[in-house]
Amino acid sequence: MSAAQRTEISELGEFGLIRRLTERFKKKHGSTVLGVGDDAAVIRYEGERQVVVTTDLLLEGIHFDLMYVPLKHLGYKAVVVNLSDVYAMNATPRQITVSIGVSNRFSVEALEELYAGIYAACRKYDVDMVGGDTSSSVKGMVISVTAIGEADANRLVRRSGAAVNELICVTGDLGSAYLGLQLLEREKRIFLENPNVQPDLEGQAYVVGRQLKPEARRDVIEWLAQADILPTSMIDISDGLSSEVLHLCEASGTGCRLYEEKIPIAEEAYQLALKFHLDPITCALHGGEDYELLFTIRQQDYEKIKNHPDISVIGHMQDASLGCQLITKGNNVHTLTALGWNAFRKA
Amino acid sequence: MSAAQRTEISELGEFGLIRRLTERFKKKHGSTVLGVGDDAAVIRYEGERQVVVTTDLLLEGIHFDLMYVPLKHLGYKAVVVNLSDVYAMNATPRQITVSIGVSNRFSVEALEELYAGIYAACRKYDVDMVGGDTSSSVKGMVISVTAIGEADANRLVRRSGAAVNELICVTGDLGSAYLGLQLLEREKRIFLENPNVQPDLEGQAYVVGRQLKPEARRDVIEWLAQADILPTSMIDISDGLSSEVLHLCEASGTGCRLYEEKIPIAEEAYQLALKFHLDPITCALHGGEDYELLFTIRQQDYEKIKNHPDISVIGHMQDASLGCQLITKGNNVHTLTALGWNAFRKA
Repeated sequence: MSAAQRTEISELGEFGLIRRLTERFKKKHGSTVLGVGDDAAVIRYEGERQVVVTTDLLLEGIHFDLMYVPLKHLGYKAVVVNLSDVYAMNATPRQITVSIGVSNRFSVEALEELYAGIYAACRKYDVDMVGGDTSSSVKGMVISVTAIGEADANRLVRRSGAAVNELICVTGDLGSAYLGLQLLEREKRIFLENPNVQPDLEGQAYVVGRQLKPEARRDVIEWLAQADILPTSMIDISDGLSSEVLHLCEASGTGCRLYEEKIPIAEEAYQLALKFHLDPITCALHGGEDYELLFTIRQQDYEKIKNHPDISVIGHMQDASLGCQLITKGNNVHTLTALGWNAFRKA
Repeated sequence: MSAAQRTEISELGEFGLIRRLTERFKKKHGSTVLGVGDDAAVIRYEGERQVVVTTDLLLEGIHFDLMYVPLKHLGYKAVVVNLSDVYAMNATPRQITVSIGVSNRFSVEALEELYAGIYAACRKYDVDMVGGDTSSSVKGMVISVTAIGEADANRLVRRSGAAVNELICVTGDLGSAYLGLQLLEREKRIFLENPNVQPDLEGQAYVVGRQLKPEARRDVIEWLAQADILPTSMIDISDGLSSEVLHLCEASGTGCRLYEEKIPIAEEAYQLALKFHLDPITCALHGGEDYELLFTIRQQDYEKIKNHPDISVIGHMQDASLGCQLITKGNNVHTLTALGWNAFRKA
């Protein structure tokens, strides 16, 4: 694509635009009976499968900043954050719908970039795009994605199934996406003050990648099934570990005890936090958008899970009367609070 | 609710707001396994039922103007336009998700009005609200609704099933919603010029109601099932009759022949069009948002349908080589074009 090329959306009209953006998306799943192009999509899951539905609304200026988020990454992320919610039910995403609202600031080529990212996510996670809505906006970009998946009724995992003494596990590492955001925001400020300064993201590829191109933990969901481990409760970490573990505790009617020293933080994130005069553990507890999975397992499953390189046991559930606690490295006891990422506080 | 009361969204926070807005919504369908409050909703349709999914994005300033659209009506309409798409598949809507993005211009009480309309639509059409997303916006209101329904595989009606000589039917009357919009826009202009002038909507309750509070044709879908009529193709009229009949023809590989004198126009709409120096038939052909159903039936079903008071046979399908035509009252032949409501042209 030539950088100079700019096709106005108005040249194609609504239906021409939809055709241009969606024609490369072919339905791949037998469960997709009917995709884009009718009043509604039609899906058919075999036998006793349950249908899982989740949706997210992403607004420019609130959830993303196009000064540093490439449109292709944005499209990818918009899909992944929804798939992550489906996996967090221990379900398998199969279809998505994508609605966008865009002002005439965006060219057709820009939207093709966005859809290239959506397409890449569909390919990687093996989901069909089956519908959506395309509209103009007065100002800014709006993206609404709905993900639909299937699950066996007896393998569905809710937030509410945890019991006292069960182990609390988390995948990957935490806080990196938040630190990546801080870094991008810093570079934006520097750029706005002096547009000749090149961004300095040297040695920060990991945290920046965690912010711009998160992945959903399909791998862990598949491994758990193979290892014959059925989590008792599960949630994905979009708002920060502390907020999410409180959701599990509230839904399950338990308290929890987390150990600071067990919480996984990537070395790059740790060093960057210190550079920014931030407490790394605070970033891990309250920084959002890592899209890792937080889940509880029965104690007898510990032997199966303990050697998995990407799953950390960070604590256990306890009686609700004992509250939700963090035990620091210095053996102090803190009460966990939900300072997680909150779109309303940011506004 | 006191008009003076204004609770800021920030006082409740995201989760508090979601709780406040959704607590009155109770799940009523056996098919709703899990509603609001987990990572995703869970649905289970019995046996060989297929899942129908459709989604619409509504943006302030593009799809609605809060100067004359009451929030309660807006919530109602946001749901109904999606249900209309599900009915247009000859399916039954069962669940919806609702995502909203709102700036701090809106109070909690304003959002309660919006959700009162959403609730009213859920009750009237017997659907469960099972999830969504709530976020702040930089400016303006964004509403994204996804509707999920079920259908028997062998009763699903697509756009593509029409054949030559089949009869083209439309429910209700056309053009009223468009004329209601023109009236509201006129009153808005008058108000902006002189805020002391009271709106003059006298005698226009029907067209204003068609614009502000459309209904989906559940009644007709149920009647067709009882009358044992399976339409061969179907679409709902959101963009104007002409645009929609062209969709049916394109998908079915046919042409069509419509008769101007058969196109149903309400007397109030007809008179108002003349008052506005508009051609009533143009309003019916190209005015959108009536949310009536357009469908084709086999000739042998004519006897069953001819006495239905709210279904008009307006023409028939013909060979594609003959094109898509409108026969005027003066027996002239016009080629149908898609000048339908197009969000991109409006922007």
